Amino acid sequence: MTKGSYLEISVNKRQERDSKLFPEWLIPEDKLPGADVKNVLAWPVTSGFLSLEEIEITESSARFILESIKNRKWTAYQVALAFCHRASIAHQLVNCLSEVFFAEGLAQAKELDAYYEETGELKGPMHGLPISLKDNLNVIGQQTTLGFAGFCNNPEKFTYDSSLVSILRRMGAVFCFKTNVPTAMMMPETINHVFGETSNPFNRNLTCGGSSGGESALGALLGNCYLGIGSDIGGSLRIPASMQNLFTLRPTFGRFPTFGARSGLPGLESVNSVNGPISTNLDNLEFYCKTVVNEGKPWMHDPKCYEIPWKEVTLPKKLTFAVMKDDGYVKPYPGVVRGLESVISKLEKEGHEVIEWNPLNHDRLNEILLQMFVSDGGIHCKEYAGLTDEPFFPYMEPYGTVKEMGVSELWDLQSERTMLCKQYLEAWNATASKTKSGEPIDAILLPVTPYSGAKKGTFRYCGYTSVFNALDWPAGVVPVTTADKTVDSKPDCYVPRNEMDKTTFDEFDPDMVDGGPVSIQVVCKKAQDEKVVSLMRHISEIIGTINYWTTKSALKD
Amino acid sequence: MTKGSYLEISVNKRQERDSKLFPEWLIPEDKLPGADVKNVLAWPVTSGFLSLEEIEITESSARFILESIKNRKWTAYQVALAFCHRASIAHQLVNCLSEVFFAEGLAQAKELDAYYEETGELKGPMHGLPISLKDNLNVIGQQTTLGFAGFCNNPEKFTYDSSLVSILRRMGAVFCFKTNVPTAMMMPETINHVFGETSNPFNRNLTCGGSSGGESALGALLGNCYLGIGSDIGGSLRIPASMQNLFTLRPTFGRFPTFGARSGLPGLESVNSVNGPISTNLDNLEFYCKTVVNEGKPWMHDPKCYEIPWKEVTLPKKLTFAVMKDDGYVKPYPGVVRGLESVISKLEKEGHEVIEWNPLNHDRLNEILLQMFVSDGGIHCKEYAGLTDEPFFPYMEPYGTVKEMGVSELWDLQSERTMLCKQYLEAWNATASKTKSGEPIDAILLPVTPYSGAKKGTFRYCGYTSVFNALDWPAGVVPVTTADKTVDSKPDCYVPRNEMDKTTFDEFDPDMVDGGPVSIQVVCKKAQDEKVVSLMRHISEIIGTINYWTTKSALKD
Repeated sequence: MTKGSYLEISVNKRQERDSKLFPEWLIPEDKLPGADVKNVLAWPVTSGFLSLEEIEITESSARFILESIKNRKWTAYQVALAFCHRASIAHQLVNCLSEVFFAEGLAQAKELDAYYEETGELKGPMHGLPISLKDNLNVIGQQTTLGFAGFCNNPEKFTYDSSLVSILRRMGAVFCFKTNVPTAMMMPETINHVFGETSNPFNRNLTCGGSSGGESALGALLGNCYLGIGSDIGGSLRIPASMQNLFTLRPTFGRFPTFGARSGLPGLESVNSVNGPISTNLDNLEFYCKTVVNEGKPWMHDPKCYEIPWKEVTLPKKLTFAVMKDDGYVKPYPGVVRGLESVISKLEKEGHEVIEWNPLNHDRLNEILLQMFVSDGGIHCKEYAGLTDEPFFPYMEPYGTVKEMGVSELWDLQSERTMLCKQYLEAWNATASKTKSGEPIDAILLPVTPYSGAKKGTFRYCGYTSVFNALDWPAGVVPVTTADKTVDSKPDCYVPRNEMDKTTFDEFDPDMVDGGPVSIQVVCKKAQDEKVVSLMRHISEIIGTINYWTTKSALKD
Repeated sequence: MTKGSYLEISVNKRQERDSKLFPEWLIPEDKLPGADVKNVLAWPVTSGFLSLEEIEITESSARFILESIKNRKWTAYQVALAFCHRASIAHQLVNCLSEVFFAEGLAQAKELDAYYEETGELKGPMHGLPISLKDNLNVIGQQTTLGFAGFCNNPEKFTYDSSLVSILRRMGAVFCFKTNVPTAMMMPETINHVFGETSNPFNRNLTCGGSSGGESALGALLGNCYLGIGSDIGGSLRIPASMQNLFTLRPTFGRFPTFGARSGLPGLESVNSVNGPISTNLDNLEFYCKTVVNEGKPWMHDPKCYEIPWKEVTLPKKLTFAVMKDDGYVKPYPGVVRGLESVISKLEKEGHEVIEWNPLNHDRLNEILLQMFVSDGGIHCKEYAGLTDEPFFPYMEPYGTVKEMGVSELWDLQSERTMLCKQYLEAWNATASKTKSGEPIDAILLPVTPYSGAKKGTFRYCGYTSVFNALDWPAGVVPVTTADKTVDSKPDCYVPRNEMDKTTFDEFDPDMVDGGPVSIQVVCKKAQDEKVVSLMRHISEIIGTINYWTTKSALKD
């Protein structure tokens, strides 16, 4: 590796990646949809490149796939093949893969088939299930670049699996590729010098979000089988999930294993990155949570995990929600507001109570979080970029310019954050005085981002998600609707409250984001992850998006 | 407050504290045991200053006290009065109290009595139970100095309870005083300029340990009723508990509330301080844990707490322990080794299996911890000491001289610590290959300190405890025996492995530490706090110390 060689290294790395795509699956340029085709959601299925069986497999839920392998309808190999083929097509449409190892995944599937053949026993509760992995999860024999040219071939191959990958592998999951991320995973749009930019299959002019953007762009194209793992330190699961109308859960830290993944900010603990599932299908997501926690026993393998089993939750008959429509800092787009309001009215129609949630010190908590991200003075990211003299993208410029914080100041910042967390907890408890039941609320509902789709390069504000990283409260994302230029028009006038608010308003273009996805966040208190998932199900049933990807599926669009 | 005024401020503060002791309880100097009387354990009971009823009350367990208040045998006021009286005597013997608020505690007890009288209902599961508090726990209307002159009258009064105090208060516990700590709680001996030094009632030439030293010295003199709360960031519960042969639990972080306590290192999160109970009585300790967690629901009040109920534990019939007799860095005194060996042989006699535990990177983990303590460059402690130009005691000199760490280096240190934690977890799992059952061990047993008593000013090494703060593994302390100069003689020769080992060996004087307490640590994995307490009970039953303070009680000595 030489200084200044980042472009050359990137070209080589991309070529190497592309060489691992199976040539027989590569669709010639002239048969792919043109750059003017924005929405490519239906393309993998309608273009005719997948066999009917491949479509059937990839449109099946994780449980159906597992059952079909168990009852010998399909082999693990068949499933992995269909999964890889559809992912290969998706990649040609939106550039979503980082590391490609179809061959290794298929070999893994073959081994599982042989094991089943020989022993009559399944390897574990995920026998033969293909799971998509975000780039930061280390996999034996593969690289992890995080989009840094300096991490290409550095190390040449990882010699160990991340704890999570190792748990999933032991349970029989199959890994065929990893997905693209923004450099260091520290931008809300998925772009880096090594692999370039990932597009949003809802509208390829829009960003897919980030940092789990490769995951989410892929997921929206992969059908009902899709179960991927992303990570979240400021919204990195929720932002891209919402940008593709997928289901996700940002779990509480300590419930899912994070050990042994690569980070752009290694050793940062003031706020902890977590892993979580993303899926087109809430059943897949729930299956994942329950299985990883209760069968994988993360606390046996990750020193930071707590032994808290995944419990069954019984929701009260009448639920109470606190809704925050606007965080007081950046006003959400009309489509987002309309989506949230439609959720509220449907919940109220079902007899649930909805009160208001005030954006309590929201901006200060977010400010603290941003300071924590760069508290090392960007030294780690500068070191990784510096390996090849790779420049930072504009969004990451603070990493290049910020002064390193002393630990004394960090302690003060941590004290302040803890005090704010206490205020949030007290505010939650205090809702008891406002609800009809006299009990505190069951969840907070709010937008995931201010954007109902954002043009590439314009996603700037993560405040709706990052506050819950500071709090370490579990937050789920549920798809609601899509932006519609015929109803979500730009208000004639709006007096912005700050520069970010102004830019966001100015950049809102109803035509540009037409058809852009709109989701909501469902937030509970620390460690109430099961309740979040239960509420996600209940809410999405009520608002009619529980089968979002089946009913609206590419097959039928 | 003026610079350089720390001595004057301290004199005033001590006078103020002493003025709150009830004059009618103060024992004239000439009736107190002389300085030559080393062991004063029996004195509170045998000296004749306590009434028989006061002795009966203070020699009763927490559960018996609660029942006796419930069935109107005693009032909460009577109980608090006996508690305060005995504490007052204890204080005159070993200088263990920092803040004295007998009057407020008695008023609180009276209110509880009135409430019970009026409503026929108890306020909560701790109605009328006096609980002793370490100085760092803030109490409405009281000060918290942490032994800093600069914190005297600064603030004049706290306007809020620490979360834990507030939970206990709501459940009906009564608070009458707080106990002495080393300056900033960052030394293993209890001494500070404000309140001076606390002595060990087993032998007043010995240190009571620290930082929960006021608690432990008091506890050993307070009888079976004693239930106190200390804190632990490197051994601060376990060291003084072991120095007084008390029971304690250093719980996993996140199970008991820590919010709103005062710290000498506020905002430090690389390693987290935890609160835990200390007692003469394992029943008291277990009652506390179960009640605080299951009834107090700390997760409702402390944003860092996890919702993990206190579970019932069923131990396997045959247990497996891994024993570490020596951490490879500082060799324990002969009494400590003898104590641990006697435990091993009794466990083996009961059919339990004992294998060896290797001190895996023990010294590096401890080194990292020490670096984390001073990673702020001692800026916080210097600020507090600087308020009055108060000098540091020799043990704390690094806080005055160390350079502040940059956050980048802290991240690297945290990464390294996490890696070492993973190694420990893997080593634990790997014991499965060495045990007869094929299962991993149930617990690690090891010394608490290298010392079977330490002359004041010679407690230097905290490595046996601090490693579990770095790991965040729960660790209990069980009394075993006392040093006996007739058997625990100094070896003729020993080749020390390092400077600390040499000093520790050189300073060992069988005569000096004769009668010094010897305890062991029982350690389980993260969040297995209930299992630790269950094992403490089982082990202390087998080795015969479950009723250590009843059978060997001051009443009968």
